[in-house]
Amino acid sequence: MPTARKDHKVLYTPGPTEVSPEILREMARPVIGHRGAEMQEIIRDLVPRLRLLFGTRAGDIFLTACSATGLWEAALRNCVARRALVPVCGAFSERFYEVALACGLEADPLHVEWGRAVPAQAVADMLATGRYDAVALVHNETSTGVTNPLPEIAEAVRRQGDVALLVDAVSSLGGIPVEVDRNGIDVCLASVQKCLALPPGFSVCSVSARALERSARRVGKGYYFDFIRLKGFFDRNMPMATPSIGHIFALQTQMKRIEAEGFEARYARHRAMGDRARAWAAGRFGLFAEEKARSNTVTCFANTRRIEVARFVSAVAGRGYGVSNGYGRLKEQTFRIGHMGDHTVQGLEELLGAMDGVLQEIGA
Amino acid sequence: MPTARKDHKVLYTPGPTEVSPEILREMARPVIGHRGAEMQEIIRDLVPRLRLLFGTRAGDIFLTACSATGLWEAALRNCVARRALVPVCGAFSERFYEVALACGLEADPLHVEWGRAVPAQAVADMLATGRYDAVALVHNETSTGVTNPLPEIAEAVRRQGDVALLVDAVSSLGGIPVEVDRNGIDVCLASVQKCLALPPGFSVCSVSARALERSARRVGKGYYFDFIRLKGFFDRNMPMATPSIGHIFALQTQMKRIEAEGFEARYARHRAMGDRARAWAAGRFGLFAEEKARSNTVTCFANTRRIEVARFVSAVAGRGYGVSNGYGRLKEQTFRIGHMGDHTVQGLEELLGAMDGVLQEIGA
Repeated sequence: MPTARKDHKVLYTPGPTEVSPEILREMARPVIGHRGAEMQEIIRDLVPRLRLLFGTRAGDIFLTACSATGLWEAALRNCVARRALVPVCGAFSERFYEVALACGLEADPLHVEWGRAVPAQAVADMLATGRYDAVALVHNETSTGVTNPLPEIAEAVRRQGDVALLVDAVSSLGGIPVEVDRNGIDVCLASVQKCLALPPGFSVCSVSARALERSARRVGKGYYFDFIRLKGFFDRNMPMATPSIGHIFALQTQMKRIEAEGFEARYARHRAMGDRARAWAAGRFGLFAEEKARSNTVTCFANTRRIEVARFVSAVAGRGYGVSNGYGRLKEQTFRIGHMGDHTVQGLEELLGAMDGVLQEIGA
Repeated sequence: MPTARKDHKVLYTPGPTEVSPEILREMARPVIGHRGAEMQEIIRDLVPRLRLLFGTRAGDIFLTACSATGLWEAALRNCVARRALVPVCGAFSERFYEVALACGLEADPLHVEWGRAVPAQAVADMLATGRYDAVALVHNETSTGVTNPLPEIAEAVRRQGDVALLVDAVSSLGGIPVEVDRNGIDVCLASVQKCLALPPGFSVCSVSARALERSARRVGKGYYFDFIRLKGFFDRNMPMATPSIGHIFALQTQMKRIEAEGFEARYARHRAMGDRARAWAAGRFGLFAEEKARSNTVTCFANTRRIEVARFVSAVAGRGYGVSNGYGRLKEQTFRIGHMGDHTVQGLEELLGAMDGVLQEIGA
């Protein structure tokens, strides 16, 4: 990872994250046709690698030119026929709920205090009403730095029978295990600018047989995000619509680098970065997320010292690092760093040192 | 433009087209945050440039991480309340119609023989029934090499009153004038890998005040492609969802290059390339498009010599150039070259020379 330079801030924002020069170079490879044998060969190579990352033996993998916001819409439109339950514990899960409504679908929020994780029992209780055919869960809530207890919630969903589990793994895939098959996830979606450390503007998802069955019965679900259409192409190792070829080149190279590190080693590195960020907080700031649910990819610091966060972020930027103010209504009350993707504990130490320097400088 | 090399085919496919090294380098610039002042400054700079290209004084310009297929859906979902008329004169306009149905909208095709342009009078006759509130037109049909008479069709639409005109300018914007305001186009959409000569995976559109009024009244139109939401962000010079930052860098640089050439000079260059491609056909092949509607960005050759097109395309690839077989059911009956984007008449001569070499080689 590059060290801070005058002309570029090293991004410790909770997405987009810093991208390695090797990956940036892939974005600049000459364009090839997306209907030719060369592209088919890349997709044939890439899909099994992504299956391993998602933790699915036979799930379908789709690559789409869109941000994850588009895949929220995809997951909901293809899979919700009756009513979706959307646990809301931060700004992104709130938006997942809004997207359901914007698509004209029936949905209920399950509100959880921001900073707390979604309790599996609360999901189970709501599902027991029998009103829902899907749960739309944000695994790692980037606005609050909370990782929801996916295995427990997944177990509650599974016990309910034919309820589809739609998981936003935007800021977890590649940094925290998602385990699609083990957790019975029907749609697992992620963008690439977080723990996969690619430039933004591209997304990936895994889709279960049940999600495809649901999709086959849905009408008016649209074209661009139609899982059945996507499957028709990806079964032949072809993108459905014109893809971002640079992102596909970059993803292939990045998957090889991720495998070279090893998934377990990668998760351990993210855990170590999470530990380090939390240790730094001690004696300096509070942590916004409740103790049992603190994320290993994003830390949300509670502004217990009442610093001017905007000024702090700007001074940290002056030292060559991008960090983020709180998101939406948590602005100034919190600030966040993303320790994800290709970042290391060693790099994080540099950032934390710079943050300490700024705290001293602003006399906080 | 690069000359053919062993390790890379120069793309004369009708999209994606060849991308200049200078533009590829933009794709590899270090990532920046998409909610910061730097990104706002780029969008503030870019939007007026795109307005000039689209030919609109005050239309809204949106940049979206998706292929144009996504913007077909956007145009239709936001603007069609009653029934769309979709002139179908090739594979892409046929798909535009299918997208309307996939979105659960009411739509009728207006079938025109492939290779012929859509007659404005036929559109006028259909609109006279009073059944339609929108016309969804592909300006330049990439599968047949036909440029539809946009001004005449636009005039027929305007005369009908409150009918929205949705134009796919995918293989025309930047190569053939679209003139959004003059033609009263409500949504003009394009991807960037054609006449703008960027890598694929990103799209742009202009949206009229009427389209926004329509959008405001539509429910269930979704989130990712909601014009009202997009406007809320672009009014503040911000992308709505996480964008492809590399494409935005590249587009800004490419717009400056396009302006340096001059729009009129650029259209003239495309006309000259179209003329040259058509002149080459004389004595060698037929032209699939009817005479009055032959495209200046894509030439579709009729395989009047009955060559094996797949073999021809492959042999041309062996000489370092990408050209395309006919699209869909026109495979083997036709083949196509794209002379668009940053290509020049001089570069085209090299390609045509290589094609002559191949014809000799295969004894056609």
